[in-house]
Amino acid sequence: MSGKSTNITWHDQTVSKGRRREKSKHHSYVLWFTGLSGSGKSSVANAVAERLFQDETHTYVLDGDNIRFGINKDLGFSEEDRKENIRRIGEVSKLFVDSGQVVLTAFISPFRNDREEVRALLEDDEFVEVYVKCSLEACEARDPKGLYEKARQGIIKDFTGISSPYEEPANPEIVIDTEKSSIEDCVEQIVQFLKEKGYYRNI
Amino acid sequence: MSGKSTNITWHDQTVSKGRRREKSKHHSYVLWFTGLSGSGKSSVANAVAERLFQDETHTYVLDGDNIRFGINKDLGFSEEDRKENIRRIGEVSKLFVDSGQVVLTAFISPFRNDREEVRALLEDDEFVEVYVKCSLEACEARDPKGLYEKARQGIIKDFTGISSPYEEPANPEIVIDTEKSSIEDCVEQIVQFLKEKGYYRNI
Repeated sequence: MSGKSTNITWHDQTVSKGRRREKSKHHSYVLWFTGLSGSGKSSVANAVAERLFQDETHTYVLDGDNIRFGINKDLGFSEEDRKENIRRIGEVSKLFVDSGQVVLTAFISPFRNDREEVRALLEDDEFVEVYVKCSLEACEARDPKGLYEKARQGIIKDFTGISSPYEEPANPEIVIDTEKSSIEDCVEQIVQFLKEKGYYRNI
Repeated sequence: MSGKSTNITWHDQTVSKGRRREKSKHHSYVLWFTGLSGSGKSSVANAVAERLFQDETHTYVLDGDNIRFGINKDLGFSEEDRKENIRRIGEVSKLFVDSGQVVLTAFISPFRNDREEVRALLEDDEFVEVYVKCSLEACEARDPKGLYEKARQGIIKDFTGISSPYEEPANPEIVIDTEKSSIEDCVEQIVQFLKEKGYYRNI
């Protein structure tokens, strides 16, 4: 056996969350968007991601497209599977925060308890709950994907707002109202919060 | 209903993998380390991550510590669960690659088929399989965590190399031999490969 093999030492990760944040010059955290289907979660999340990206911040958006067809493709829409869906999204978010990125999640995430379990995975300054407020009537009138129509017809079961409850956040860090405000105004409101908290990159 | 609500448009992510790579000035891909327990996967992966970090590259290491106690804490060590373990690590890796980072994974991942399924999730230039070669005798002599001893005593079942097979990669992009080479030399070998492929950040 070669003597060199004894050189192998067993060390932890030397590139830590702290060093990554220092290098990137910005905090890392989750912006967790929650709200009814059609409330505007994805639109606002992507607009915030674009703004942050332009301001030299590393961002990543987790949404149905990259999660439901990927890591969670084995999950359906039973109560148990919806819970597991949110748990895994929380764990993936935690990895991204550890990697120094700002992660924006855009999922209905209707149950308060599931969201609180994600919050508990992270440090106090790493979880920002954004309640995307919009009345059921307005969401249903928009119905961008035709999902409310199918839910009303009974084609989609357990649809949040129609045949399954939506539990409003008790103490969200941010509430945006997409019935009253434009996307641009919602983005500005979120950016102001991040600046006040000291989470925003100095530019 | 407010007229502004009609302003909501439904757009995809505007911050794409391409724009992130352009901004970071480096390619994003997976360095998938595979090999026996004790072969040196974590040590070499972390040393490569440190080197890349110092050269202004965004890296993240996925290993047992941040995966087995997080997203995969519901999985055991049955054949089915080990397969699901690797599938999820592959999907998480794909998200990190999409986010513009270099992800280094350090898991035994003993089955060729599981590794090939991860490869198939990614583009041709996004998956670099690194076979961390080390004889069973040398790994067992190192036994840094005392696992081989427990496996020999039958306390740990289905232990790779002892009571469960390890399938060597058929066509790995890189083979490093931790019995013959120091960690530093292994890192240099990997860096040279990345430079030749044009994956390394110009500095």
